[in-house]
Amino acid sequence: MSNFPYLLLNESICKENIRRMAAKAQAHGLALRPHFKTHQSRVIGSWFRQNGVSSITVSSLKMAEYFAEDGWNDITIAFPLNPHELDAVNALAKRITLNVVFSSAANLLKSVNQLSSPAGIFIEVDVGHNRSGVDPENTREIALMVNQIESNSTLKFKGFLSHAGHTYKARSTDEVLKIHRESLSKLTILKTFWKESHPDIMVSYGDTPSCSIADEFWGVDEIRPGNFVFYDVMQSLIGSCKTNDIAVALILPVVDICQSRREALVHCGAIHLSKESITLPNGETSFGLVCGFNGDTWGNPLEECYVKSLSQEHGVISFTNDFPFKIGDLVAILPIHSCLTVDLMGEIKLSDGSTIQTMRQHAF
Amino acid sequence: MSNFPYLLLNESICKENIRRMAAKAQAHGLALRPHFKTHQSRVIGSWFRQNGVSSITVSSLKMAEYFAEDGWNDITIAFPLNPHELDAVNALAKRITLNVVFSSAANLLKSVNQLSSPAGIFIEVDVGHNRSGVDPENTREIALMVNQIESNSTLKFKGFLSHAGHTYKARSTDEVLKIHRESLSKLTILKTFWKESHPDIMVSYGDTPSCSIADEFWGVDEIRPGNFVFYDVMQSLIGSCKTNDIAVALILPVVDICQSRREALVHCGAIHLSKESITLPNGETSFGLVCGFNGDTWGNPLEECYVKSLSQEHGVISFTNDFPFKIGDLVAILPIHSCLTVDLMGEIKLSDGSTIQTMRQHAF
Repeated sequence: MSNFPYLLLNESICKENIRRMAAKAQAHGLALRPHFKTHQSRVIGSWFRQNGVSSITVSSLKMAEYFAEDGWNDITIAFPLNPHELDAVNALAKRITLNVVFSSAANLLKSVNQLSSPAGIFIEVDVGHNRSGVDPENTREIALMVNQIESNSTLKFKGFLSHAGHTYKARSTDEVLKIHRESLSKLTILKTFWKESHPDIMVSYGDTPSCSIADEFWGVDEIRPGNFVFYDVMQSLIGSCKTNDIAVALILPVVDICQSRREALVHCGAIHLSKESITLPNGETSFGLVCGFNGDTWGNPLEECYVKSLSQEHGVISFTNDFPFKIGDLVAILPIHSCLTVDLMGEIKLSDGSTIQTMRQHAF
Repeated sequence: MSNFPYLLLNESICKENIRRMAAKAQAHGLALRPHFKTHQSRVIGSWFRQNGVSSITVSSLKMAEYFAEDGWNDITIAFPLNPHELDAVNALAKRITLNVVFSSAANLLKSVNQLSSPAGIFIEVDVGHNRSGVDPENTREIALMVNQIESNSTLKFKGFLSHAGHTYKARSTDEVLKIHRESLSKLTILKTFWKESHPDIMVSYGDTPSCSIADEFWGVDEIRPGNFVFYDVMQSLIGSCKTNDIAVALILPVVDICQSRREALVHCGAIHLSKESITLPNGETSFGLVCGFNGDTWGNPLEECYVKSLSQEHGVISFTNDFPFKIGDLVAILPIHSCLTVDLMGEIKLSDGSTIQTMRQHAF
């Protein structure tokens, strides 16, 4: 059976992305607690271990279980605690160092008294992403939360956690740096206030754009970027990386070419790439960039050529200049959002033909 | 471990959707060859068998293999033949009645001589969707294709296949019917021309909007709707169904509520619902509708309440009126595009607690 489309990983780009972020964290005296939701893979997790990483972030309890089974014993679940997961959180927090997050006094009050294992607790603060977390200026709510956490002597109040996800809307490094500085200001005021009574208090911070672009991290103790392990087209648009830092591409055949519409039909759809898109400078929507593929590695993205639409399994490439491929040729598509593409594909090929499994393939 | 979010199927709505489409096909003297890419499930396939369905459509060779293994022996792969799949197509066409599709003379010339098993061949014509297929007025290209098919005596030229996928952009039944009539006109002209030399020639047609809404199918021999088995928010917006014909919903907990932004945080993200969206009448983007859930079935969608954004695992619900749920309550989200949600979730629960597997869970 044809195995297209498949997701190809450029191992050396990926390892260099990991090495660079680990070195940057070390140079700034920051703990690196990478977010493993992007790769969801134990093999790639081991590449982080080789760079000295021993603590990780995940986006769900299920993902925490998956990596705990693989020997990771210091995990933060960066999703506000869901009261339906209390039993499993209590069980896991007995076995490993587990940190959980509360995003408001209401979210906390619902569950905090039912935590019976020694979990670490972070209070999530909202530095402007407006998705979840307490307003860092809401001293009263934060004080109430700290009080409640400390009234449960099993728990350890660790500090404040924030995700400046609004950097994903930035389209230049200057915009990212502006958001980053605003975030650091808010977090530093908060940390300064609480440090007096809690000398060990931590600030855990960091999205891939900020951690890739910024060079100042005052007040931050730990960073949690995830996407940088592979990067993607969106990150290159934000300015977090160059397109040749992107470590994954979907490999697939050209199935038909329509010269009159200047379009090519390829076998890759929303069930492979996801429907994540970006708006191009010309106002068009792009679901991926198109590169040549020599059977081993992919080349630079073709100019004026992009994935213009996706159905379930059909992808349509729009091209302006001559389309340099024939029917049957393989091309590489750089994903807009590698986290979603990797999640959908469920397995990752290396250029030596071997396959890396992700959590999708795991029987729970 | 918490099992949220999970995908719940209302079995009686689903079976009624199947029954109604089967009855409609029969009433119009049409063969029903439903597209199985929506449910990707052998159990739900068996519900079609109970309605007399014996021929099916799939979107990939892999899906054809999956259903052939389950005893389906009349399958059309409604995706232009990919030259990398020739060996597997030849192997499968030896075992079952397999129809494949060519979308242009170039696509056909690349592979037709290498088909060595008795496959049925459809020529795909483009009735306006502009994704793939020959222009039905391009008599010369079509004649060349028929000629080439017939020069390979192993093959059987079956006729013309079309997907009027541009009905998905329609936002009223009148718009769908206009597209439908235009499509039928084009297909009828083509069929009339070819019927003289090929009395058995077939027209295979049909997307869910046309097949749900239209009541005239002149010239059509076979319909291939798929999405109708579950329907979804997009289909209700098009006018193909009512919201209470939607047979699947994602069940998940409310994790936090932010009264000042009038938003609730829920555990469902792009890896569950997909990033398919619709534009609401007020110009906002919606990733799903929100319903109450009594532990068994869901209610009607709440007014002025919708999923406004999705990250990987975070969903944010926007509400205008009072939000009638507390932290920890379960809600049901009706998906914008059920095909993508089902593909992502990989398994489907019934209200009796049992689970239906889909192709995602299958080891190939």
